[in-house]
Amino acid sequence: MAVPPSTYPRRLLPLFLGLFQAVLLLFFALFVTYDELSAQAEDTSLVANQVYSTFPFFQDIQVMLVVGLGLLLTFLPRYGFSSLTHNFLLLNFSMQWALVLQGLLHHFHHGQIHLDLHKLLISEFAAVTVLISVGAILGRASPCQLLLMATCEIPIYLASEWVIVTCLGVLDVGGTITIHIFSCYFGLGVSKALFKATQQPPHPKETPTPSSDLMSLVGTLILWVFWPSFVAVLCQPGDAQHRAILNTLLAMSASAITTVVASSLLERDGKLSPGHLQNGSLAGGVAIGVVADMAVPPVAALALGSLSAVLCVLGFRFLTPLLRRKLTLHDQCGIHNLHGLPGILGAAASVVAVLVASKDTSGSQPSQPSPVGGNASEVVEGQWGARGAGGQALCQAAGLAVAVGASLLAGLLTGAALRLPCLARPPERLCFDDSLYFKIQDQAESPGPDSSAEEGALALKE
Amino acid sequence: MAVPPSTYPRRLLPLFLGLFQAVLLLFFALFVTYDELSAQAEDTSLVANQVYSTFPFFQDIQVMLVVGLGLLLTFLPRYGFSSLTHNFLLLNFSMQWALVLQGLLHHFHHGQIHLDLHKLLISEFAAVTVLISVGAILGRASPCQLLLMATCEIPIYLASEWVIVTCLGVLDVGGTITIHIFSCYFGLGVSKALFKATQQPPHPKETPTPSSDLMSLVGTLILWVFWPSFVAVLCQPGDAQHRAILNTLLAMSASAITTVVASSLLERDGKLSPGHLQNGSLAGGVAIGVVADMAVPPVAALALGSLSAVLCVLGFRFLTPLLRRKLTLHDQCGIHNLHGLPGILGAAASVVAVLVASKDTSGSQPSQPSPVGGNASEVVEGQWGARGAGGQALCQAAGLAVAVGASLLAGLLTGAALRLPCLARPPERLCFDDSLYFKIQDQAESPGPDSSAEEGALALKE
Amino acid sequence: MAVPPSTYPRRLLPLFLGLFQAVLLLFFALFVTYDELSAQAEDTSLVANQVYSTFPFFQDIQVMLVVGLGLLLTFLPRYGFSSLTHNFLLLNFSMQWALVLQGLLHHFHHGQIHLDLHKLLISEFAAVTVLISVGAILGRASPCQLLLMATCEIPIYLASEWVIVTCLGVLDVGGTITIHIFSCYFGLGVSKALFKATQQPPHPKETPTPSSDLMSLVGTLILWVFWPSFVAVLCQPGDAQHRAILNTLLAMSASAITTVVASSLLERDGKLSPGHLQNGSLAGGVAIGVVADMAVPPVAALALGSLSAVLCVLGFRFLTPLLRRKLTLHDQCGIHNLHGLPGILGAAASVVAVLVASKDTSGSQPSQPSPVGGNASEVVEGQWGARGAGGQALCQAAGLAVAVGASLLAGLLTGAALRLPCLARPPERLCFDDSLYFKIQDQAESPGPDSSAEEGALALKE
Repeated sequence: MAVPPSTYPRRLLPLFLGLFQAVLLLFFALFVTYDELSAQAEDTSLVANQVYSTFPFFQDIQVMLVVGLGLLLTFLPRYGFSSLTHNFLLLNFSMQWALVLQGLLHHFHHGQIHLDLHKLLISEFAAVTVLISVGAILGRASPCQLLLMATCEIPIYLASEWVIVTCLGVLDVGGTITIHIFSCYFGLGVSKALFKATQQPPHPKETPTPSSDLMSLVGTLILWVFWPSFVAVLCQPGDAQHRAILNTLLAMSASAITTVVASSLLERDGKLSPGHLQNGSLAGGVAIGVVADMAVPPVAALALGSLSAVLCVLGFRFLTPLLRRKLTLHDQCGIHNLHGLPGILGAAASVVAVLVASKDTSGSQPSQPSPVGGNASEVVEGQWGARGAGGQALCQAAGLAVAVGASLLAGLLTGAALRLPCLARPPERLCFDDSLYFKIQDQAESPGPDSSAEEGALALKE
Repeated sequence: MAVPPSTYPRRLLPLFLGLFQAVLLLFFALFVTYDELSAQAEDTSLVANQVYSTFPFFQDIQVMLVVGLGLLLTFLPRYGFSSLTHNFLLLNFSMQWALVLQGLLHHFHHGQIHLDLHKLLISEFAAVTVLISVGAILGRASPCQLLLMATCEIPIYLASEWVIVTCLGVLDVGGTITIHIFSCYFGLGVSKALFKATQQPPHPKETPTPSSDLMSLVGTLILWVFWPSFVAVLCQPGDAQHRAILNTLLAMSASAITTVVASSLLERDGKLSPGHLQNGSLAGGVAIGVVADMAVPPVAALALGSLSAVLCVLGFRFLTPLLRRKLTLHDQCGIHNLHGLPGILGAAASVVAVLVASKDTSGSQPSQPSPVGGNASEVVEGQWGARGAGGQALCQAAGLAVAVGASLLAGLLTGAALRLPCLARPPERLCFDDSLYFKIQDQAESPGPDSSAEEGALALKE
Repeated sequence: MAVPPSTYPRRLLPLFLGLFQAVLLLFFALFVTYDELSAQAEDTSLVANQVYSTFPFFQDIQVMLVVGLGLLLTFLPRYGFSSLTHNFLLLNFSMQWALVLQGLLHHFHHGQIHLDLHKLLISEFAAVTVLISVGAILGRASPCQLLLMATCEIPIYLASEWVIVTCLGVLDVGGTITIHIFSCYFGLGVSKALFKATQQPPHPKETPTPSSDLMSLVGTLILWVFWPSFVAVLCQPGDAQHRAILNTLLAMSASAITTVVASSLLERDGKLSPGHLQNGSLAGGVAIGVVADMAVPPVAALALGSLSAVLCVLGFRFLTPLLRRKLTLHDQCGIHNLHGLPGILGAAASVVAVLVASKDTSGSQPSQPSPVGGNASEVVEGQWGARGAGGQALCQAAGLAVAVGASLLAGLLTGAALRLPCLARPPERLCFDDSLYFKIQDQAESPGPDSSAEEGALALKE
């Protein structure tokens, strides 16, 4: 299946992308206009306020996805440029593709789609699924394979999100179930079907260097800082958003500390593993998303953050090697540990939170609501109404099941499609190497002591 | 003209900068006070709102200029520290110098200049011109030359901006004509006059390494993320600002994808050039600036982004080598491809946009304005009134001509001034090298395998 | 005291941190709930506005502390991963610890502590003191020592801040006295007591490399950009906050330029020292904090910025070597030059500002207040009331004295406690080395030219 570089089909990538841009232009020309929010002059300050309340969150999320996630993926020392670029390219491609599909599905009124910042944000959320799934096959897939994966994943995500949120009424403000769990199992499915039963031996270029580990940690820290914006951007302004920010901050803070504890306990010599730190610190953010705006007490956010970090580190230490050995399942970035396990934990927590919130309510006096429980009950009755807390809890569990099942199945099918020979999976010895895709100076030829010695000689002659 | 390092006039830089700071202090002591916006208590929330609506944009722009642009320039592997520092120094110097000049020209009331955040922002915009122009001569000019260039460029920019915006009434909210085109041709003029007909042979330290290319790409991504803030900060709050943000996002997204297409089609082996990616992804932001807040349809933003990326990549591939060969014009960072060509495209688009907007209006019924055309017509009549659409279109073209002509002429004169021997242009063999200006360990002497071996030995002895 | 690696007590760190997380969980479970700000529905937009006005500042500060300060500390070339991680770990630990202590001391009502974003922000400020103090002993202390230091420093800081701000009524919106001066002398005290009279010889791994200097400068630039948010976040919204932002911007801009002047004048060959740039550019931000929201004229901000940069550079050039020789005082990052000297300058300036503001008032006619003096007088009378300007000036000086005295004493005691053998100070030859704490590939073994040659051979065989 691997194609020798001489016959590498270089023209497929620009052809595919160029065609896509042309179709996009046509689609926009025919159907998309701007939403003029302020038909009357007095609405101007309303629009301005909407911009001021959304745009800073939006920019934070852009930094996360473009810079933070991009840098996190540069832990492969000779593949950093590719990681950053492919992440950037896939974000843009998937966002535009999601814009088209969402426009057609949800926002098509009188032959027109009215574009606004909120719709762009929603499309960006859809694109996140692709960026996460890529982690399973990073470095061993060609750009064409990644683009085809994005092409398949976006419509499947939109369908799954529609079932989970619209049909089942699952509450998931931070995208734990709809984004993290979905994209994790989709990526694992793709990896399984793409690499089949091949045991991937450790590749010499796979080992991080100190400097690539450092860059990757910087990416983690950027993600860590801006994660509250990702979770809170779609919350109801006011208390719910305030609570979502605080819950996320607490969960991520607990994750950071617990990761150090877990990683250092698990290694015989007590040294921390960079990979644990780069991922475990973020696990709390994944888990908290689904309950962030619910009326959970602060201690629950801390506990979720700690537990998810423990799960993530345990996953790296035991589960990933096990899956590789037993199922020949290849997970390059350990997305199952960062997105899968903490996501499932979060989904389980949301079931508990819904049940507990309803008990709190029935226990407390309606006339004297406790500061937390009182508000929670309003949320409860407002949001899941006749369904009742038990029904809502069931829905949360059903949402989890749908996300896992649909994504695994769709991922396996997509992965099979990625085996098409024309998509040019790189040969094993050229994996994890920027020089396959970029005109980049080979790192072995970078100026070393000798070239400097020559320069010194040159300087003396002058 | 090049000065040997032993006689390098090290004292000129601190002398010049120190004197400038002293004059600035005197000027501030005599004339500058704070604008107390809220004379009455009830105005406090107004001031607070002004701060909240401007400050996040301002911070975004600071990140772009200080971190993003600085990192973008670190593609020269041994000149990264100088690129970052000179960019930072020039930003501060130019901003202060613009503050003084703008204060004297525009804001001098009753012997007092009232400082506020908006005036700082305007000065920052003036400083951007210097940071762009520097790109043409990066690495081959001394800090003193750069400072003298900034000293000349700021007043010329202010004059040109006054002619273009105030006299001609050119619409240019994102600074495409006034900032990008002006600074590009100013920089090229300086480069031409400074290096004259010398063919600059490729310098051994000019070639990026994988790690310097990676840092530079991170700079690009930071600029890419925050560019909408740069374009939208001076827009009318409300719909115009909302549209400017969306247009910029669409244009930059199209640029990112089209750059990959164009770069990969242009190279025989289909590999992407890092330089194309680092610049082409931003081309859409340059082009969209001048029409971002106009009532252009979304498809126009996408088309502009795609076209400008194509122009940028073509420029790198064909025009820059041509200019170097035929005109002996040296353009180190390719500013003509990132700022010149996309800028001209944007200016041309603004002519079309003005004409089309007026036709849309005359075609549609005044009583039933279409969502876009209707508002556009109000903008049209409100902004260019008696002048008419044709007149405004002419003005946009005239603005472009003024920007190109004035900047080229002024650049040539400034470049001639930079040839003064006392400004100490570095000798060719010391170009692109941090160690000329900084107490930095030579990269050839950095601890390599041998030093570690020694340490191992040391450890064994202990 | 130094422990050989074989007997290094690896279990202490996870034990201590794990226990702390358990206690924290218990504390949160028992006492902490969310502050429901909007009991009534009409308060929702109020809460939303509070979030929108605080959260962007909060995120800026998070970027400063996690990414900016972390990167600034990566100037030690083989200790970058440790610097980033320890900084991140200490921030989270100290913030949580401060949250507990502040909750117990200040916010304990009816057995409940109501958490909100403001309280998290205040705890974050407390954590900053630890991050600064660490700079004095960076690279030569174990994580356990750093955690014990944080455990001691937070309560002492809270006590000192209570005395300075609540009892003495010192005005210090940017934390110049309470945070910067306190943490600087605390750190120096710890260093003195920890290393006693040992002359620390220069360590071979202490010398920055070009790439570690570059990363550190990027950290400086991030801190530089977001510093205004740090100073202004706790200001009164409106004019005071606007003024604080402007004053900080001016001071930091002056610092940047003056650092170049001072550093280049002080070195015989006129080359700039990277360390001077990395620190001096930020000195203005330290000094301005205490007067940022007072009615000082803009020229005072510029002068403070310039002077503090001069002090910082002079400190690096003369004072640090002197202290090391005469007092055997070890200050790894030069925190005395960045936080101590500029802080004292700022405190002195606040004394002058208070006295001058009161003179301005008494001199001007009450009926015709000058734009600056007039408002200042209102501030004056409103804030230090019966105490009078002289009294307030005395208080500012007393606050400085308390901060220096208390922190030095407490630091010396804490440093003595850090000498406990069980805390495992690393042996000298393993200092400044990531591989003591992290599973990181030794830098000497990173793939070099040879491994590439092998790969080439491998490729040929295939």
